[in-house]
Amino acid sequence: MAKQRNTRKPAPSQRKTAKTWGGRFRQATHPLVEAYTLSLPIDRRLWREEIAASIAHARMLGRQRIIPRADANAIVRGLREIEREMAAGRFPWRDELEDIHTNVEARLAQKIGETAGRLHTARSRNDQVATDLRLYAKRACDRAETAIRSLQRALLTLAEANRRVVMPGYTHLQRAQPVLLAHHLLAYLEMLERDAERFHQARGRADALPLGSGALAGVPYPIDRRSVARELGFARLCENSMDAVADRDFVVDFIAAASLCMTHISRLAEEIILWSSAEFGLLTLPDGFATGSSIMPQKRNPDVAELARARTGRVAAQLQTVLAMLKALPLAYNRDLQEDKRAFFEAEDTLIETLDVFAAMTPELRFDAERARQAATANYALATDLADLLVRQGLPFRQAHEVIGRLVRYAEKQGKPFEELTPAEFRRFSPLFPEDAANLGLDAALRARSARGGTAPRRVAAALRRWRRKLET
Amino acid sequence: MAKQRNTRKPAPSQRKTAKTWGGRFRQATHPLVEAYTLSLPIDRRLWREEIAASIAHARMLGRQRIIPRADANAIVRGLREIEREMAAGRFPWRDELEDIHTNVEARLAQKIGETAGRLHTARSRNDQVATDLRLYAKRACDRAETAIRSLQRALLTLAEANRRVVMPGYTHLQRAQPVLLAHHLLAYLEMLERDAERFHQARGRADALPLGSGALAGVPYPIDRRSVARELGFARLCENSMDAVADRDFVVDFIAAASLCMTHISRLAEEIILWSSAEFGLLTLPDGFATGSSIMPQKRNPDVAELARARTGRVAAQLQTVLAMLKALPLAYNRDLQEDKRAFFEAEDTLIETLDVFAAMTPELRFDAERARQAATANYALATDLADLLVRQGLPFRQAHEVIGRLVRYAEKQGKPFEELTPAEFRRFSPLFPEDAANLGLDAALRARSARGGTAPRRVAAALRRWRRKLET
Amino acid sequence: MAKQRNTRKPAPSQRKTAKTWGGRFRQATHPLVEAYTLSLPIDRRLWREEIAASIAHARMLGRQRIIPRADANAIVRGLREIEREMAAGRFPWRDELEDIHTNVEARLAQKIGETAGRLHTARSRNDQVATDLRLYAKRACDRAETAIRSLQRALLTLAEANRRVVMPGYTHLQRAQPVLLAHHLLAYLEMLERDAERFHQARGRADALPLGSGALAGVPYPIDRRSVARELGFARLCENSMDAVADRDFVVDFIAAASLCMTHISRLAEEIILWSSAEFGLLTLPDGFATGSSIMPQKRNPDVAELARARTGRVAAQLQTVLAMLKALPLAYNRDLQEDKRAFFEAEDTLIETLDVFAAMTPELRFDAERARQAATANYALATDLADLLVRQGLPFRQAHEVIGRLVRYAEKQGKPFEELTPAEFRRFSPLFPEDAANLGLDAALRARSARGGTAPRRVAAALRRWRRKLET
Amino acid sequence: MAKQRNTRKPAPSQRKTAKTWGGRFRQATHPLVEAYTLSLPIDRRLWREEIAASIAHARMLGRQRIIPRADANAIVRGLREIEREMAAGRFPWRDELEDIHTNVEARLAQKIGETAGRLHTARSRNDQVATDLRLYAKRACDRAETAIRSLQRALLTLAEANRRVVMPGYTHLQRAQPVLLAHHLLAYLEMLERDAERFHQARGRADALPLGSGALAGVPYPIDRRSVARELGFARLCENSMDAVADRDFVVDFIAAASLCMTHISRLAEEIILWSSAEFGLLTLPDGFATGSSIMPQKRNPDVAELARARTGRVAAQLQTVLAMLKALPLAYNRDLQEDKRAFFEAEDTLIETLDVFAAMTPELRFDAERARQAATANYALATDLADLLVRQGLPFRQAHEVIGRLVRYAEKQGKPFEELTPAEFRRFSPLFPEDAANLGLDAALRARSARGGTAPRRVAAALRRWRRKLET
Repeated sequence: MAKQRNTRKPAPSQRKTAKTWGGRFRQATHPLVEAYTLSLPIDRRLWREEIAASIAHARMLGRQRIIPRADANAIVRGLREIEREMAAGRFPWRDELEDIHTNVEARLAQKIGETAGRLHTARSRNDQVATDLRLYAKRACDRAETAIRSLQRALLTLAEANRRVVMPGYTHLQRAQPVLLAHHLLAYLEMLERDAERFHQARGRADALPLGSGALAGVPYPIDRRSVARELGFARLCENSMDAVADRDFVVDFIAAASLCMTHISRLAEEIILWSSAEFGLLTLPDGFATGSSIMPQKRNPDVAELARARTGRVAAQLQTVLAMLKALPLAYNRDLQEDKRAFFEAEDTLIETLDVFAAMTPELRFDAERARQAATANYALATDLADLLVRQGLPFRQAHEVIGRLVRYAEKQGKPFEELTPAEFRRFSPLFPEDAANLGLDAALRARSARGGTAPRRVAAALRRWRRKLET
Repeated sequence: MAKQRNTRKPAPSQRKTAKTWGGRFRQATHPLVEAYTLSLPIDRRLWREEIAASIAHARMLGRQRIIPRADANAIVRGLREIEREMAAGRFPWRDELEDIHTNVEARLAQKIGETAGRLHTARSRNDQVATDLRLYAKRACDRAETAIRSLQRALLTLAEANRRVVMPGYTHLQRAQPVLLAHHLLAYLEMLERDAERFHQARGRADALPLGSGALAGVPYPIDRRSVARELGFARLCENSMDAVADRDFVVDFIAAASLCMTHISRLAEEIILWSSAEFGLLTLPDGFATGSSIMPQKRNPDVAELARARTGRVAAQLQTVLAMLKALPLAYNRDLQEDKRAFFEAEDTLIETLDVFAAMTPELRFDAERARQAATANYALATDLADLLVRQGLPFRQAHEVIGRLVRYAEKQGKPFEELTPAEFRRFSPLFPEDAANLGLDAALRARSARGGTAPRRVAAALRRWRRKLET
Repeated sequence: MAKQRNTRKPAPSQRKTAKTWGGRFRQATHPLVEAYTLSLPIDRRLWREEIAASIAHARMLGRQRIIPRADANAIVRGLREIEREMAAGRFPWRDELEDIHTNVEARLAQKIGETAGRLHTARSRNDQVATDLRLYAKRACDRAETAIRSLQRALLTLAEANRRVVMPGYTHLQRAQPVLLAHHLLAYLEMLERDAERFHQARGRADALPLGSGALAGVPYPIDRRSVARELGFARLCENSMDAVADRDFVVDFIAAASLCMTHISRLAEEIILWSSAEFGLLTLPDGFATGSSIMPQKRNPDVAELARARTGRVAAQLQTVLAMLKALPLAYNRDLQEDKRAFFEAEDTLIETLDVFAAMTPELRFDAERARQAATANYALATDLADLLVRQGLPFRQAHEVIGRLVRYAEKQGKPFEELTPAEFRRFSPLFPEDAANLGLDAALRARSARGGTAPRRVAAALRRWRRKLET
Repeated sequence: MAKQRNTRKPAPSQRKTAKTWGGRFRQATHPLVEAYTLSLPIDRRLWREEIAASIAHARMLGRQRIIPRADANAIVRGLREIEREMAAGRFPWRDELEDIHTNVEARLAQKIGETAGRLHTARSRNDQVATDLRLYAKRACDRAETAIRSLQRALLTLAEANRRVVMPGYTHLQRAQPVLLAHHLLAYLEMLERDAERFHQARGRADALPLGSGALAGVPYPIDRRSVARELGFARLCENSMDAVADRDFVVDFIAAASLCMTHISRLAEEIILWSSAEFGLLTLPDGFATGSSIMPQKRNPDVAELARARTGRVAAQLQTVLAMLKALPLAYNRDLQEDKRAFFEAEDTLIETLDVFAAMTPELRFDAERARQAATANYALATDLADLLVRQGLPFRQAHEVIGRLVRYAEKQGKPFEELTPAEFRRFSPLFPEDAANLGLDAALRARSARGGTAPRRVAAALRRWRRKLET
């Protein structure tokens, strides 16, 4: 059977002159090398940043009289045209030109001739790509934060709409103590809040301009880096040229934040999968967010949640990719760094798509409040509260715990819930039980957990209000 | 600034009926869900396997009278047509049809009408995709082995061509003892040989037919799995239907083998980078395999080796992706498994492209034999041999080592190589030194390492011959 | 607050002479360096292998007259004594002697004097540690295989004891089709069988003797490697000295096999967690294998399964550790390789402990056959079988699937299971339904899946017998 | 051969009553389960935090009259005694008591009797361990920052001491442009500065008190969480009880910061390895920080750097461990979380030990200024400067680059450095070359890179001063 991978057939190449670095070379690059080193399909995503950074650079060169002002103007005009071509999808991308940078410069030469060659004065692809990618990273952080806010709002709305729903809280996936569903959902708002902060801090670390660092040592021209930073919206300058071209911390920061955010979503995903099982039966997925089976007509599968769960591993793997890439790399720039973008973009796309689809799905989730409430009281979920009742009668907690442990064993054997035990039965385990021990109610148990952070309805109501205020500003 | 990610714009969807599982659902799938669950761009690579498996299945259904023979024939004819369309690039792929399986089935219905609906008798997408992917995995193992053999041959040719080149052997990146370059290169043939074995064993584990397992429990039809296995070239049947649809070990096996193979190449890549540095100066990269700098006209950069090094991390990350995907998945099929293919194909593509470009580059590497030989004797590289000389005079090795350690310190201080020390100077450290201790030569040192596996020229020559025989069969 | 980490306080060191390599050095090693490079706490686990390999080496040296026979005998006697000290826990380990090798050699010198210095003739720590670790790896593979067999037997016994238990089979954690619990459990025997094969193959790759490779280039002595291999039980020789000291593939192979085996156990762990939840209620953990809560007296937590799940990630991380360690390492030996052992031993310990505790727990699991059977029929689990019934009446499967999809929607709305629908209700969806469509039974559905690999009781019984035979040999 | 792993032999256990949760259980825990779930060897490191948090909790219980004040006082006194025992190494640790928490509580009971049972009122091990670990994490962040500052200072001192050393700057490990060694070293101060910031931010996220969250739902007592937070030095309260016990973000944050910091050190380690090779010859490791070979007397190996490089992978693997551990965990607490500590402590220990040994080694590094300067001018390292010279004559950079590329090829063929080319030879490539093109000097080239961030000596001097000021405050 013929070869199946879709290898780009490399044409016999007479393209030597297209390279920006051809002067010293006599032989054309081997076609397999061209294919192996090609970064255009990945880095063309940086076109807006490439144009913006080039314009700011050209203007500065003109202002500083490093190149003639007229040439600077011509370059800027040419770049604007190119930008319009790209925005309109009319730009003639050429794979044989390696990367976004060479594509732009070659196109500029077609438009304004030899003057285009002045644009690369006082810069190198090394500081150029670092600039593009930091610009991009800042925006990606903003996009992530926006998407996080949307999911937070969706979860908040869901919590508000279900503010009276009581369900079992779980530890070890065993029913533990009753909680409000709203309380449970608010836990995710807390997680996502930390995620937003992480992206904000990642943005802060990306917010320094590398341009002006040249290949690695700085450039021998009277450049004005501050004005470029200002024009591009960078808060500060990279302070060491070698670090500036060798550093990809901001990529790691972004992917690390994305990994943890996906991990949080994977926990929510797992709960959606569990809750929508027949066994839990707490949740129904609406048609638009469930998928069926090609063979079993009765199935309603939580595929979105399953895929989000799996893709969490994929994002974490991007983190491993960039850490492995950076490990033991000597300074300054090495071609290894090209691999940063694929990992970055994969992490970003997966994260944003996942946040978006969860934000759309969340408001559609339907809970079975009745069944949730029943589950919340079954399985002796109020055992801790019975123990606490004994504690309030003066018994040390540890002994109270022991008493209730024996009581549970007895009740299980009798096949009775607490409510069906008689006062006498209670007293066989401790004389401290009040007459109405069996009447310890679900709502009282909830109300009692009223310290800050607890699941008491008034606490949860206050938390809902606090979040609503926060997310509306 | 407008949103930059290239999100497929999801059209308002009236496509409900296109799904293979629409019966129970009243609402159309949400467009974001369609986008999130779409696997076609990834799994369409499996088209040959999909067609082959479907044809074998349809034939068996006919033979077993599960569907009418005439229907089976019509289905096979239709599938053949579809295969031709795909091979010719004329197949009308439709994203809204989720995956390769639905695309094929829908197209088949266009061609042969309602009869197409009989093809999915006695199978499920769960056993179907496992069958496709195992077929693919077996072929991918073969491709990997072929590519490994090519690189082995290229390295062997390079070793033969440089069979007299002596160079320093390194430990801790310090010059340690002289070795033949050919001996050094043959170490990579050993590594690659293990890689080939690993792919062979991975292929063996993939070589079992899942089809007939249905969704998870088997199928209630009198199918004949053996004949399907025979037709598709599987050595055996998956013996448990639940394992058959839940198992992705064969994906892990492939990616694990690819990770280790890439790791081996990364070691070679590192050496190419080191050896072609000005400092080592052992190697010149030909123009076709070096790249230049956009700013520094004198540079010749080993970009291929650098990218291979970085991509090693990427492949290892795919391994982590699939292990994380499988972790704690309850039986049997879960949608998480869809992510296996992206990881598989990325690992495979990266591996094969890397092996190919290294196989092309290797024969073009030019060594500086002169400089290598000089380096091999400098820095007291024969110190161990001097110690061994004392051992042969009866001194225990440990004491001999101590003597030579002091001798090296002395010689360093004098700024002299061993050859320039006088017999008297040698004797100051041990009376056991023979008169001609200084004349201990490089070639004698090499010749002495003549036990099997050593760098003695006749051993290496024998190894070269053994490999040539092996790789020519 | 004072510093909390338990840092070994490094004493001011006059220990220079203790090193095996002190000759050239004038200054003592810095105490922090001693602490940082110390490998003894990790590698002392290799003591049996170290002694065995040293004895075999010394004997060969004597046989080949590389050292006097009497010296060889003295060395062997000394090593035997050391071995007894170690086995009895009386060996005076000394941290300042770096590693296991130096400890043994220094102790040998205490016992037999200067002759001990002859042991290190014609070997290096580089080939020595590789030999020890390969010996260890082969045994570790055997231990893993043995532990796997025990768990397989335990699962088989459990399956046999529950051979009539019917439960829901799940896909997407949704009830899909009924299966036999025994069938479900046998899926794990299949997975574990592949694991055993993987360890067997890993053992095969470890089964080559590195000794005789010296530091990297071979040794200048007339050694006889074959006899050493024979004595130590190695199947073959490492064929290239540089590869022999640089290769850690066999460590990767072991950890890769362990990662996948742990992944399989994590799936079983997840099911134990799910099944023992109140919601599933299929399984009761016995007291000896459940743990309680410090606060909630009613809890029975599946901690063993949870820890196994978490430790799966830990083992996979060891794989990442060694792959990262090996990435881009130039030949031959580098100190980085020392880290192989910590990763290896962590993976091994975790795996074996996990297999052992699961083998002990498995026979104690108690299933609720009643509840499992009820669950197996609920939620329209026989929908596929109804569709297949229509197919047997001549309807193409795709249409049958659509019909049943609509039927399920109708029945759900009525709140009725299939059994309560009237023939008239069935006929509203298709005239092909037979009179007794509602009577389609669970057992018939199981029996129908009788092709090889399916869940039909007679198939499962045959599989149980096959496994019993296999595991008893 | 007998089993080699050092498995703790589990004694037949009658220890049921020792558990804090024994009441409901009739059978003792299986010995293998005890061994498998034991966390004491790991979590005993948290003893200071455990005592501090328990004291603060007991005091609050007394203040709030939840337990009698006298009991609170007795508890505090008992805990103080226990703290002294632990600090003095006299505490009788008992493995059979699972963890640090139970050890403390059981010991307290020995000291103050039944009253000890009141300590566990209004708390659970779930919020307790989260509190301990957050306290610990904050201190670990401080320790990391302190160790980072030490290494920064050491690097700064080294840079100051070598402020006139010129060396080749590298890209792709090819000599690119001359730089000051001090400039190169300052790049690492920048990286470490970001690391310090990351630990600072991680500390900020850890700085919230979980205590008061109970098992997951809050506690039914009138606790005062603010006063506990104040006493323990927490800046704020965890706002959601379920998040509080389920959250391990702060562990991920710490390990992520440690991974990136180790990655930075691995780059420095790689450079130390390269620079101390015979080929680079820029650096001599002092005796105290080099190690020798057991067989090659002339070797001086950079083992510390090699181990740091390998351990970078180990720390990154801990990150993967905790991300995998958290993935898809349903709320709230699950036993999986126990694995957080092993990963945390391994990452912390490795990081701190590595920073410490590098801080000790750095001031001892000796550079060969002469050789570095020679290397800085060789290999046409001033080619970019020649191109820039043409640019200043008006040639667009792109053309200038092409001209110099051809010039380099010519000079290489002639075997001449730029300095030996005649003006006529220069003019053959461009008439724009000034008469003295050949005299373009190294120092001029350095001076020219004077924009902020560049390697010009006055820029670097200013940066050294800035750092000195910063690190002295």
